Amino acid sequence: MRVLVLGGDGYLGWASALHLSAVGHVVAVADSGVRRAYDVELGTASLVPIGSLAERVGCWEEVSGRRVEAFVGDVCDAGFVEAVMGGFAPDAVVHFAEQRSAPYSMIDRAHAVHTQVNNVVGTLNVLYAMAGSARPVHLVKLGTMGEYGTPNIDIEEGWLELSHKGRSDRVLFPKRPGSFYHLSKVHDSHNIEFACRVWGLAATDLNQGVVYGAATEETARHPVLATRLDYDQVFGTVLNRMVVQAVLGEPLSVYGTGGQVRGMLDIRDTVACVRLAVEHPAVAGEYRVFNQFTEQWSVRQLADRVARVAGPGVTIEEVPNPRVEADRHYYNAAHTKLLDLGLRPHPLTDTTITTLLDTATTHRDRINPAVIHPTIDWRSTSNHLGVPVG
Amino acid sequence: MRVLVLGGDGYLGWASALHLSAVGHVVAVADSGVRRAYDVELGTASLVPIGSLAERVGCWEEVSGRRVEAFVGDVCDAGFVEAVMGGFAPDAVVHFAEQRSAPYSMIDRAHAVHTQVNNVVGTLNVLYAMAGSARPVHLVKLGTMGEYGTPNIDIEEGWLELSHKGRSDRVLFPKRPGSFYHLSKVHDSHNIEFACRVWGLAATDLNQGVVYGAATEETARHPVLATRLDYDQVFGTVLNRMVVQAVLGEPLSVYGTGGQVRGMLDIRDTVACVRLAVEHPAVAGEYRVFNQFTEQWSVRQLADRVARVAGPGVTIEEVPNPRVEADRHYYNAAHTKLLDLGLRPHPLTDTTITTLLDTATTHRDRINPAVIHPTIDWRSTSNHLGVPVG
Repeated sequence: MRVLVLGGDGYLGWASALHLSAVGHVVAVADSGVRRAYDVELGTASLVPIGSLAERVGCWEEVSGRRVEAFVGDVCDAGFVEAVMGGFAPDAVVHFAEQRSAPYSMIDRAHAVHTQVNNVVGTLNVLYAMAGSARPVHLVKLGTMGEYGTPNIDIEEGWLELSHKGRSDRVLFPKRPGSFYHLSKVHDSHNIEFACRVWGLAATDLNQGVVYGAATEETARHPVLATRLDYDQVFGTVLNRMVVQAVLGEPLSVYGTGGQVRGMLDIRDTVACVRLAVEHPAVAGEYRVFNQFTEQWSVRQLADRVARVAGPGVTIEEVPNPRVEADRHYYNAAHTKLLDLGLRPHPLTDTTITTLLDTATTHRDRINPAVIHPTIDWRSTSNHLGVPVG
Repeated sequence: MRVLVLGGDGYLGWASALHLSAVGHVVAVADSGVRRAYDVELGTASLVPIGSLAERVGCWEEVSGRRVEAFVGDVCDAGFVEAVMGGFAPDAVVHFAEQRSAPYSMIDRAHAVHTQVNNVVGTLNVLYAMAGSARPVHLVKLGTMGEYGTPNIDIEEGWLELSHKGRSDRVLFPKRPGSFYHLSKVHDSHNIEFACRVWGLAATDLNQGVVYGAATEETARHPVLATRLDYDQVFGTVLNRMVVQAVLGEPLSVYGTGGQVRGMLDIRDTVACVRLAVEHPAVAGEYRVFNQFTEQWSVRQLADRVARVAGPGVTIEEVPNPRVEADRHYYNAAHTKLLDLGLRPHPLTDTTITTLLDTATTHRDRINPAVIHPTIDWRSTSNHLGVPVG
């Protein structure tokens, strides 16, 4: 199949592109480079050194003999999207090209507006390009489990069979997300469902959990193929960040009591899930949702686990929660659809954590301790990156 | 109370501003004039002649002795919103300042993007200005009944008490709207609910039905105080448009079989509802939704009614439906909250229709028959205003 990966220079976009290429698909990536620009704005950098996009695709061709075409441009530029879609003629578009950080979206008004406009307009451009395409294109869109929030009922996969006052319907699962970023994905989901309904498009919305891990089989084949690894308060995901704190000898920080339960998954499962979605497409007119995670953990459970594996002397510290969220809540989310398609999960093991600890130790001189602690307070409308919360 | 009406130069914004002023509130309006610019783009104009915003507020001061301050600017300009909110210091902000036409949003990609960016960013700017305000401000936001779509269950007022697998929660009522415009209001609703949750803002989301009627007590006091009346395919609402067709001696067109059922209300009830919402504010942290309509009618029922009142010779014509929507469906929407606050509805009467027929007859020379019939096809991603659908 011909697969276009939008946002193919990012943490998961790059890893997904390589995996799709490795298994034999004809892959192209498109990226504006904005994720690297966010690093400059935030004064941080990937813990693992990464090559330029040109170096990456060149190295992949040398290592694998497979070519990944790279287009540089912004999905918010409709002309770019149309040109790439027209030129590459994909069977599937995997859409990672969104601002993906909740804290980034909560810095201030300008960052909230940037996040929502960037994400919503990019996705609208993709939907219009698909609808205008002569051949059918399957959209595989990265959503987030955070779209659901933490309802007091079981979370289903996107849709809900509902009975009310003696009548019933199948409705989109009610959403109550926790940041302007998560909201942008809810907006996308509604827009995509509508586009499937009126234009007969085919879409899979991958409501992904929190990803951990530094490498996949493909990114590990050469240092230039490494994907980025973030540990900062803005783009770092929780397990990756804790591992870096352990290497620094700092306490592992949990926000509040750490009782927040979230669906999580290994980066190797992310790329497998994307592949499964691509290879088992939605049908024309179908808007389907897969909850893309493998296990549920509380933040506190993760911290306990990392502390145990990292060894004696590693402590856990509760810090004032910069977010507005429940840290004691019910959480039970369905996640069977990807398993039904054949996903074989990598559950979290001590080895996974050890490998991450090794990676962080290798690149310890690249760690900037100043970017780890949270300074973006959900309750404030005007945050400054340098000022600690609490 | 001090009330700022955003979009105060439009069909309902102007009428609401005058009503709030008439009953003794200190009122300011803010408007960019974009609604008049849409007229230029679409080659149409209000059926009833309207004064400039400066003429309107001048006339109102002469007629009523009350001053309405007018600010000219765009709510997408955050600096403008902050300056007006800071300068006027409202107790309540009534937010009509959105692109409000479903067909307009479905013209093509550019119009879809304009609608969503304009509406979402404007509302984000208002939310941030409220959160940054030293004094509490109550947001009264115009949503639409179209956010719900036509579910097979009863529609509640914004929230739904839900039981699922033996557990229960109160969730946002699931939305499944029918255009990029309606989607923009769904996006707003989610953003507003979040802002109330994290910042303790107070908001009332008025999910309004389809409005008919040409005048309120206040707009009728002087010709310069008249509010605009639209009959074109893009901005004209169904009853107003049918009345114009009757005056032209053309068949009253229904889309498909006309079986679409919608909540509807008289413009005099719109201004009363807005006043009730303002005078009975939400409390800090509360996001509440009122379904703002008084009666449910199918489009066919409306056409039959207009035909009967307009007299012999008026026929009804089914035209291919340019929209993607069910024209046979269940529809039963709650609308008790505004009644509980004291709304005394103006049900649709033959007199209301006769008055509208008289208005259209008076301005018959201003009717452009070419702008009535639908040319914007929901199934197309690239519509041209001059080309009929079907």
